[in-house]
Amino acid sequence: MGSPVHRVSMGDTWSRQVHPDIESERYKQTFDVERLTNILDGGAQDTALRRKVESIIHSDPEFSLKDNYFLTQSECYEAAVEKKFHLQMLAQRQGWAEDSREAYYAYRTLSGSLGFSLQHIFLKALRSLGSEEQIAKWVPVCNKFQIIGTYAQTELGHGTYLQGLETEATYDAATQEFVVHSPTMTAIKWWPGDLGRSATHALVQAQLICSGARQGIHAFIVPIRSLQDHTPLPGITVGDIGPKMGLDHVDNGFLQLDHVRVPRENMLSRFAQVLPDGTYIKLGTAQSNYLSMVVTRVELLPGITAELQKACVIAIRYSIIRHQSRLRPSEPEAKILDYQTQQQTLLPQLATAYAFHFLARSLLEFLHDSHDAILDRDFSLLPELHALSAGLKAMVSDFCTYGAELCRRACGGHGYSKLSGLPSLVTKVTASCTFEGENTVLYLQMARFLVKSYQRTQVSLGPTLQRSLPQSVAYLTAPDLARCPAQRAADFLHPELYTMAWAHVAARLTKDSVHHIQTLMRSGADEHEAWNRTTVIHLQAAKAHCYYVTVKSFTEALEKLESEPAVRQVLRRLCDLYALHGILTNTGDFLHDGFLSGAQVDMARTAYLDLLLLVRKDAILLTDAFDFTDQCLNSALGCYDGNVYERLFDWAQKSPSNTQENPAYEKYIRPLLQSCRSKL
Amino acid sequence: MGSPVHRVSMGDTWSRQVHPDIESERYKQTFDVERLTNILDGGAQDTALRRKVESIIHSDPEFSLKDNYFLTQSECYEAAVEKKFHLQMLAQRQGWAEDSREAYYAYRTLSGSLGFSLQHIFLKALRSLGSEEQIAKWVPVCNKFQIIGTYAQTELGHGTYLQGLETEATYDAATQEFVVHSPTMTAIKWWPGDLGRSATHALVQAQLICSGARQGIHAFIVPIRSLQDHTPLPGITVGDIGPKMGLDHVDNGFLQLDHVRVPRENMLSRFAQVLPDGTYIKLGTAQSNYLSMVVTRVELLPGITAELQKACVIAIRYSIIRHQSRLRPSEPEAKILDYQTQQQTLLPQLATAYAFHFLARSLLEFLHDSHDAILDRDFSLLPELHALSAGLKAMVSDFCTYGAELCRRACGGHGYSKLSGLPSLVTKVTASCTFEGENTVLYLQMARFLVKSYQRTQVSLGPTLQRSLPQSVAYLTAPDLARCPAQRAADFLHPELYTMAWAHVAARLTKDSVHHIQTLMRSGADEHEAWNRTTVIHLQAAKAHCYYVTVKSFTEALEKLESEPAVRQVLRRLCDLYALHGILTNTGDFLHDGFLSGAQVDMARTAYLDLLLLVRKDAILLTDAFDFTDQCLNSALGCYDGNVYERLFDWAQKSPSNTQENPAYEKYIRPLLQSCRSKL
Repeated sequence: MGSPVHRVSMGDTWSRQVHPDIESERYKQTFDVERLTNILDGGAQDTALRRKVESIIHSDPEFSLKDNYFLTQSECYEAAVEKKFHLQMLAQRQGWAEDSREAYYAYRTLSGSLGFSLQHIFLKALRSLGSEEQIAKWVPVCNKFQIIGTYAQTELGHGTYLQGLETEATYDAATQEFVVHSPTMTAIKWWPGDLGRSATHALVQAQLICSGARQGIHAFIVPIRSLQDHTPLPGITVGDIGPKMGLDHVDNGFLQLDHVRVPRENMLSRFAQVLPDGTYIKLGTAQSNYLSMVVTRVELLPGITAELQKACVIAIRYSIIRHQSRLRPSEPEAKILDYQTQQQTLLPQLATAYAFHFLARSLLEFLHDSHDAILDRDFSLLPELHALSAGLKAMVSDFCTYGAELCRRACGGHGYSKLSGLPSLVTKVTASCTFEGENTVLYLQMARFLVKSYQRTQVSLGPTLQRSLPQSVAYLTAPDLARCPAQRAADFLHPELYTMAWAHVAARLTKDSVHHIQTLMRSGADEHEAWNRTTVIHLQAAKAHCYYVTVKSFTEALEKLESEPAVRQVLRRLCDLYALHGILTNTGDFLHDGFLSGAQVDMARTAYLDLLLLVRKDAILLTDAFDFTDQCLNSALGCYDGNVYERLFDWAQKSPSNTQENPAYEKYIRPLLQSCRSKL
Repeated sequence: MGSPVHRVSMGDTWSRQVHPDIESERYKQTFDVERLTNILDGGAQDTALRRKVESIIHSDPEFSLKDNYFLTQSECYEAAVEKKFHLQMLAQRQGWAEDSREAYYAYRTLSGSLGFSLQHIFLKALRSLGSEEQIAKWVPVCNKFQIIGTYAQTELGHGTYLQGLETEATYDAATQEFVVHSPTMTAIKWWPGDLGRSATHALVQAQLICSGARQGIHAFIVPIRSLQDHTPLPGITVGDIGPKMGLDHVDNGFLQLDHVRVPRENMLSRFAQVLPDGTYIKLGTAQSNYLSMVVTRVELLPGITAELQKACVIAIRYSIIRHQSRLRPSEPEAKILDYQTQQQTLLPQLATAYAFHFLARSLLEFLHDSHDAILDRDFSLLPELHALSAGLKAMVSDFCTYGAELCRRACGGHGYSKLSGLPSLVTKVTASCTFEGENTVLYLQMARFLVKSYQRTQVSLGPTLQRSLPQSVAYLTAPDLARCPAQRAADFLHPELYTMAWAHVAARLTKDSVHHIQTLMRSGADEHEAWNRTTVIHLQAAKAHCYYVTVKSFTEALEKLESEPAVRQVLRRLCDLYALHGILTNTGDFLHDGFLSGAQVDMARTAYLDLLLLVRKDAILLTDAFDFTDQCLNSALGCYDGNVYERLFDWAQKSPSNTQENPAYEKYIRPLLQSCRSKL
């Protein structure tokens, strides 16, 4: 499996020896772990490059994450800016370009604990919305960090619903400037990362008003802090929004604009322009704008998935070291991963972490394949891509958050300690349920696509029908069995069977959605009312469809692994586990129309419980295969060597609560204890 | 509804005016909110007493929680000790006894942000396990805070499984002392609250060894810090376990004992004694010991439930103020609580918060009624009480954690800000899933009771059977319908119907559990193996039983409200909602054996969606009825007056990230920006 030495490098004396409980788990390899790592990385060369970057980063103490858990919000912010500063210097020395693999691996290695990450979003929006001149002017100054940019869209009172934004940019033809202004308290920009204490420029989304007419949302580059001394520019009130559940290293900020004037050239003008005299000209559709949102969501998926992968690594390694209670009175205390309940908690999460890896990859491929067509103004694939990016972002962030929290709780009390690495991981991944689109809203966008797709099949029945439905929803009109043919537990271990089962349920729920809308409309409701009164049902359909898409992408990834039978077999079990776990946590959807019988559900459960035992055997190897370094995991519970308790004890000693005086003793504890002198 | 003035007292200028969006919600009262508050409090007199305590606490700036979100871990700890100190002084002035209603209300008002809370557990264990002389010696010094006690059970490597504890107490007859010792690293005591920086004495659970024989776990009072200068005593290594996900105000600690000698009298000796010569004498059963654990778990329930109640208050008030998107293109942006998906997220949580209130009350009554009998050595009710306390602690903490997190996410981005009050609330309630028994282990204890109870009915069929089953599981043998008789949606709004439905499912799953064990045993497995291979199924049965118990206790509470038809009606809707929400999130369990058909599930959903609209109308009044003060909620989103945005903006200004210099500017940002001087 290649040398794991690079993982055992926390510099602790006990790291030299791997704990026997975990060593024995690595003893019998039914597959080549290194091969699986290569497959996950996209090839052996990528693995090598990643490890090279990791070793450069880890050999530099400036990048150590070790004391992160002891920092205040302000110190976390400072540490992230410091790391970004050093990484910028390192990248210059090493010749790593902004969008290179090396830069990506450096980001992964540092678990994203870096300042100025909004520069990336600022640039992306600039490239989508800016004219060629604007791109030529601003991109180089960004790349050289002559300015620090942020993207200011969300307002104190306005989020996902773009049309509701209140910030105004009124064109003044006399001076050829825009007057950018926050007319109300709820119009104050709120949440943009890097805005609180860092950014010098904001890309502000505002309602354009010119010649007295409102023209909708447009983007403006607004300088907000002096490049000389970093003080807020005239008319700018800017600051930090204060403490959060997590992401302490990011200075999410607020921005209140008081009639701030920016030159006419600062409106991004690829799709719309304001002439000097105030004439408004539309230059194209807004659909490319739409595309940049899609790209952002799809590109988020691997990072979110990585958090669940890390949580699985930590919790599963710990569950091998931790012993508790006895399976039988005569035996010693058992490894907690040998309890069925612990397997049932953790192993489906491991399967999910793998499933989402292949899902993210297939969606990135789809994005890549359709991207050029879209830029060539062939928008035919955009609705499907948009629906997939919305629904799958919602599903992946929901499931990864839920799964990471399950992993945290599966570590018992120690999972509540920040030193486990899990609390910060959970609070970080939780944020992804809200940013880049709130999940319920996103699921409903997927649901609209499903309903529209199905409604199309109802009106145009004909031989070309199949081809006319986008690929991911083609099953809506495919021939379907009314009853599942499984006759024994083993029948549930066939990809065709469970993929078909998921397609059946997703199609039934979509049809149910459409049926409910139509029933309400027949009884007098208009389309809006009918939609609003049935959203709970649409949510269900969208979720089932997303599950189906994930199962399908996993099975398709397996088909490509013909030359790797051992790896394929172990991944196949994870795919089976993912599909069956989903069926067993949603049995109602499968039983509802009799597609599954109660007896078949019991068979599926039998197959599932047997699978847990098989995956249990490979659990440590499957977590090793993700190949996260100990430094990246930064967990007292999750290190490769399994020396959990030594590390917990050692790390705790360094806590400020142990290295600093007790502030309460002289003031409160001593007076209390000595108020009536003890005779003990 | 009585004067809400006491709630509108954050001292902000805008507090004088209630936001019109929320005022209009309070305009039409279908029931008397004050009456409901009285019912929740246990009577109008209790409401008055609670408000009196609240007004005393809130009028004293020493008790302000206002800046809590800006504190470091160490500052939080100091603030909690400071508040405890002042409360102790206040209680002395006011004459509030340790276990008085006033003390309880003070604790509720301060959301438990008080130091030295383990003193209470120390005393409880002392009273259960100590001899009369020991109680007479130690209780007064505790009550006068001449010592600060903690309860040290959990070890670095050992938690829920008591027998696994490694700490040893070896009797030395030569000196008549116990030598208390941590023989390994995993034996270090880990997690006890107040141990890290405060406690002077620990009640240490350790393996007793006398005359060379191991006698199992016993409790020893061990002085750990000097009463003169608070330094650790000889042989004691003690400190803080470091940063955690939440509960920053508690100094959870570790304790390593190096052959520490304590006098023979320091072993708590109600149930066992060691004579001077080392003879070990058992003085009774350990069942009263067992009782103290049951009492602790039952007494936890109201506090855990209160966290969900607060989360509902915050999220529902915010959902009235927050507008987003349009229900119809022609309308202004809608209150987000008017979306079906938001109702479906929040209102079942509100129903749960009420359900658990009545559940906790009924369990406390059961405890109270059986307590005296148990002290009189009538242990007949103890197994049932133990099972209920275990299963319901698991359910309440699980559901409250899940629900509070749903409430947090339902507030979108602002729910991620600590200023919303929700992150600290979520991380606090999450801890309750692990402390006082890990939830999976507790559910399985409930499951064992179910399995045993049902097995009893299989062996002794006879006329006395019904009476012989404990009341909460009597339904296991009650006559049962194989099919639900509901024929239309409205049929699901009958307590008899849904209580019966839950009883049916819980009984079926319990029988299924027993059946699976028996099948495995018939095929050669012994009882341990059979149990371990079926725990996933037992979990399901235990959860369904807990749901049934909650539904039943809610319906029984409603029956007692005959004289309050308006309040009863609104609570009845919450009871219906709780029961149906449970059915709809577990449809598989109801469809599995055909008890419900798919068509009936659809009817239940129709009834449920209609209920959401009815409960929506009363939602603000139902949250007002909990009568939490603004100071206690400490939420920028959840204040009574609804002035959300003003408060968020104002509070954020006070964050240290705004009041302190940017530590990163001179060191990193300026050098970066000016490395190649900008020409902009």
